[in-house]
Amino acid sequence: MSGSSERAQRADAQRNVEAILAAAIRVLARDPKASVSVIAKEAGVGRVTLYGHFPNRAAVIAAAVDRALAQTTAAIDAARLDEGDPFEALARLVDASWSVTHQHGALLVAAERILPVDELSFAHAEPMAAAEAVFARGQRSGAFRDDISTGWLVTLLHSVTHGASTAVHEGGIDAEDAPRLILATMVGAVTPPGREVPVVGGQVAESVP
Amino acid sequence: MSGSSERAQRADAQRNVEAILAAAIRVLARDPKASVSVIAKEAGVGRVTLYGHFPNRAAVIAAAVDRALAQTTAAIDAARLDEGDPFEALARLVDASWSVTHQHGALLVAAERILPVDELSFAHAEPMAAAEAVFARGQRSGAFRDDISTGWLVTLLHSVTHGASTAVHEGGIDAEDAPRLILATMVGAVTPPGREVPVVGGQVAESVP
Repeated sequence: MSGSSERAQRADAQRNVEAILAAAIRVLARDPKASVSVIAKEAGVGRVTLYGHFPNRAAVIAAAVDRALAQTTAAIDAARLDEGDPFEALARLVDASWSVTHQHGALLVAAERILPVDELSFAHAEPMAAAEAVFARGQRSGAFRDDISTGWLVTLLHSVTHGASTAVHEGGIDAEDAPRLILATMVGAVTPPGREVPVVGGQVAESVP
Repeated sequence: MSGSSERAQRADAQRNVEAILAAAIRVLARDPKASVSVIAKEAGVGRVTLYGHFPNRAAVIAAAVDRALAQTTAAIDAARLDEGDPFEALARLVDASWSVTHQHGALLVAAERILPVDELSFAHAEPMAAAEAVFARGQRSGAFRDDISTGWLVTLLHSVTHGASTAVHEGGIDAEDAPRLILATMVGAVTPPGREVPVVGGQVAESVP
């Protein structure tokens, strides 16, 4: 085999892997139980081609999770969470957490069924650390209440964001309304008792019936 | 068979059913995947006796869920949620929700694996309706913010309570600290922007490091 056809083959393989991972993220977001066949079909490749790159369904999902994590890291970096007013940083944290959770939440549900718990803890570790830094900075500055632990605030953001994502999937709330609801909740939750709940970002929209 | 020995047998059967359901609630709280054998052993009855009352594991769990629901109804009634100051009613709602969720949460996890979704929605329906009434009353009275929907506040309480229960199981927070953290969060979340976060119940304890 000539060097150039080898290169062409490698580029082809790379394109297939990209297509498979993108398809896995899309398909698993709709159905966490989706089969390898469904993922291959969505990617426009045959099952044999897919198995040429990934030994089994778990390997596809693990690679898709890695891909999703890289996107998460990029979103967190872009949010510059260590800068500016703590409430405004909280608003950017909520936006980043929401888009990452809502886009990749179903992928993690799929992953929870097959990947070791430790690997998934790792998947949450970086976003959790970023959230913890935002809350700790707000508490140190006196802007956020410090009579509840930073760890609870991290748990809270996680629970509320996942709860909102589930509610959107079940039709209880609109996806475009979710970040505002999460932010309103988190701003109220971090405001020290006896102090006014501030108006942050666009959180106070028109009255909802 | 004489009438009195029939009565004795019935009383015996009734005691066995009680023991099996109480055992199921305890055992499944520790391990949602617990087998029928483990439940029978904890109840102090044989597998054959258990199968004499319940055709399969799903039937045991369904009956245990019914039992848990009756306890939930009693807790909600006792909380007199339609009376008094909305924030104090919220505090009682949080206490009732917490004890029910933390006591029965693992049972619902077990149930989620085997019962139809509709039956489980029913399991949540009454507590959710009680929560909705508390939030709607607070919003009507002007005490709670009304720029976010009542439905979101119900979702929020559900998410936060389950998140706290998970965190307790994982060792992130202490069980006795959980109701205070949930209440602090919910009070902040319902306080209208521009108004002071009130001090409710014992929510502001000593500073947590």
